[in-house]
Parts: sequence; C-alpha cells; structure tokens
Amino acid sequence: MMRNSLLQNISIILVRPRTPANIGAVARCMMNMGLSRMVLVRPLKENSDEAFKLAAGADEILKHAEFFSTLEEAVAGSHLVIGTSRHRGRLRKNINTPREMAAKVVPLLARNSVAVVFGDEVNGLDNDEIALCNEIVSIPSSNAFPSLNLSHAVLVVAYELFLAAGAKKHEDSNVELARAGELEGFHRHLEKTLQDIGFLDQDHPERMMLALRQLFGRARLDERDLRILRGILSRIERLVKGGRK
Amino acid sequence: MMRNSLLQNISIILVRPRTPANIGAVARCMMNMGLSRMVLVRPLKENSDEAFKLAAGADEILKHAEFFSTLEEAVAGSHLVIGTSRHRGRLRKNINTPREMAAKVVPLLARNSVAVVFGDEVNGLDNDEIALCNEIVSIPSSNAFPSLNLSHAVLVVAYELFLAAGAKKHEDSNVELARAGELEGFHRHLEKTLQDIGFLDQDHPERMMLALRQLFGRARLDERDLRILRGILSRIERLVKGGRK
Repeated sequence: MMRNSLLQNISIILVRPRTPANIGAVARCMMNMGLSRMVLVRPLKENSDEAFKLAAGADEILKHAEFFSTLEEAVAGSHLVIGTSRHRGRLRKNINTPREMAAKVVPLLARNSVAVVFGDEVNGLDNDEIALCNEIVSIPSSNAFPSLNLSHAVLVVAYELFLAAGAKKHEDSNVELARAGELEGFHRHLEKTLQDIGFLDQDHPERMMLALRQLFGRARLDERDLRILRGILSRIERLVKGGRK
Repeated sequence: MMRNSLLQNISIILVRPRTPANIGAVARCMMNMGLSRMVLVRPLKENSDEAFKLAAGADEILKHAEFFSTLEEAVAGSHLVIGTSRHRGRLRKNINTPREMAAKVVPLLARNSVAVVFGDEVNGLDNDEIALCNEIVSIPSSNAFPSLNLSHAVLVVAYELFLAAGAKKHEDSNVELARAGELEGFHRHLEKTLQDIGFLDQDHPERMMLALRQLFGRARLDERDLRILRGILSRIERLVKGGRK
C-alpha cells in the first residue's frame, strides 16, 4: 500500500489545546508529514484567524477537524490508541520512543485506525486519559529542559511515522485489532467481575485496574481474543452467582 | 565523552531569520535537544520580548547568541559546515537525511566543531551560501506540502543529533520481564483454573490455550503482572471449591 493511504489511518488527537496558534502549527506539521485527520477534544478557544495563519496553508486539515467532548468518545472508533507523556512514572509502562512506536504501528495501518493523543500544553494527559491508551510514547529530550511545544511534539511523532511508512520493506500485518470502544467494554466487564469475586480493593480499585489495562493494552487484542476473555468472565460470574450449573 | 559535552560542539546558524518569534522557538527546540550555541547572521529584527516568550525559558541561549554579518565569518571557526535545503537540484550534491547526517557527524564531535546552517523562512540559503557548506541535509517531508516552519526544521535536525549522541549510552530500560519458566507456570495455572470452571473444552483445550498463550505472550508480562494474574486465578479457584470465603 502507498505511504499516503497508510498515513490516512492515523488521527492526531489534541486534548484541551489552549491556543488556536498551537492548533494551526500542529495542522502545518501534520500536512508536512502526510497526515490529514485532526481531532480536537474540548479546545479552550475556537479556531480563529490565528490558527489559519500558523497553519500556513494547511487549511484543509483545520476545516475538517473533528470535535468531541471527551477523549473516550474521540477514540471509540480507533483500533490502537497511543498516548504521549513526558512522565515515566512507575504506573506508566508500555513506554516507547517515537521511533519504536512508528516501527510497530505502521505495519498495522493497512487494516487498523490508530490515534495518537496529545494532552494540553501545561499538564499533558491526566491519569484517566492515560488509562484509555494502549501504549505510551515519550519523546527523548534533554533532562535539563524536556518540555517541547505542542506542535513540535506532534512533529517528532509525525516525522517518525512518515519515515516508517516510507521505508520500503514493511510487511502489512493482517491483524485487525479490537476497537477502543470494545476494549473499554471488556475492561469494564473485567472490573465488575473482579469486584464480584472480591478481588479488587473496594476503596482503591484504580491502581490495579490501571495495571490490568496496560497489560491487556500491550497484548493488542483482536475480536476473537475479546470473545474468549469475555467468555471467561461470563463463566466466572455465573459460577459466583448461581454455583455450578 | 558525555552526550552533553559532545553536543556543545554543535552550532545552529540562522541566516537572515525574519521574526523574533521564530528565533525564540528555535532556542527552545535547541535546549530541548541539549544544544546551546546559537549564531545569527543578519536577523531582520532585533530579539524582542516575543523571542523570549517563544523561547519559553531557553533564555540563556538567546542571551548568548552570537551575531555575524556574513555566513562566511560565522562559519570560519567550524570544522564541518552542514547546510539545510529543501531543494535537491543538480548543483546540490552530498545530500543526506538528518538521520544519515547525525550518524556521520556525532563521531566527529569529540574533536571538531560542527555548524548546521538554516536559511531564511521564505527563500532558504542562496547558492553562495550553499557553496560554503561541506554537505547538505534535506528533511524528508510530504511532496504535497514540504515546507516546514524554521523552528520545526531545526527541531528535526537537533532531535536526530540528540538521539545519535545518546545512542551509545542509551538509558537501559528498567523493565525486567518475567522469565519463561514463570510464564509457563502461569499458563499451566490458567489452564487448570479454566478447566475447574468448565470453560475449556475437555477434549480439545489446545486451540483455546494457544490463543491465550499468544495473547499473554504479546503482553510482555513482568513479575508484578504475573502476581496480579495468579492472584485472580487463586481467588477464582477458592470460590469454585469452597464458595465465598
């Protein structure tokens, strides 16, 4: 498949971007690197002349940007959701460099839609938003001054995807992953079952659930995997509720 | 030699930059990637508050920027001069990608000073300026919309130099995966539990177990993950055997 048609299956999602200038600069970077689909979750201000000025000609991307009020809705149709974070805390595993991420993601693009999510310019993504991501990408930068401008962070990710998509020899993968909405349904089912069997700490289930979300996030589940796992959960629930049947 | 002291031997030279905002944004990108030496050749305007605003804290780089009136004077002390250009005309040989350039340049940094030269935002470097360069680097970008903003072009070059300088002593990942034997123990535990709850087909459990093995194989489990998963299995088994306890 051609580079450009592969790259069409990538969405860049900006969560709560603060300035139209940054949104415009992101549009330009996306178009420089052959990306086209921009998704905005609750931008602080409407796109203005400032956004179009910074887009420097990438107007089509701004005009066709899609809007959502939550990240969960924005990623519901994506097969793979990649969050960006500067924080490398112990709860945030599955961390790749942009180059590692691009090498893994590009072979999936023939059959899957992939979202790369960027948080707001000051605080980044919060823990609930990180929990919606299958994997995390963290941009290497100087420890003394690590914080990139939003559009520059997007550029590094887009540049690596553009290069990986143009590398001649990747084999398109046949794998078709489950969509984020289906995965979310499984995570909720799992949480409910673990509560029913008394495994989760009632007061603080979040940390355990985050570890499990990341574990299953890494596993790149397809629909058959989800059917098996949900079958197991249903079986456990019947046992807990009604004894052996 | 350490990454940072290597990177100190790189200068970023901006020829006739048009706006203080772009100069400030370049300073931020340089500092993000561990570069420190900025050289300005005939900037159109003086550095202003706008430059410091966009530098977002990289003030030291702006304050210590060096000024020259010609590129020839600016590069006089450099051992290697690399020009950036979007144009790949016949007079412009020795063209590298930023990644190829970084791989060649970094080993030279221990004993050499290297200048990377960026032309003005509209016209780039002219032919006389290109003639002063030993090599040319051209940033891969979409044919449909190839022109990067100045600070974004600097970022791509600086990012590749930062990665190449760190390649030798890349941070080792902290992740320590579970050993194969521990994983095998988990798979057997899982199979036994699924039999106990009546989920596995007694005659042909192999296909289902293979799907589950592959699923958990992709998840790159560490010891904590295994503890959580085996904790869940143990809990289920107690429930099945003795009712809720």
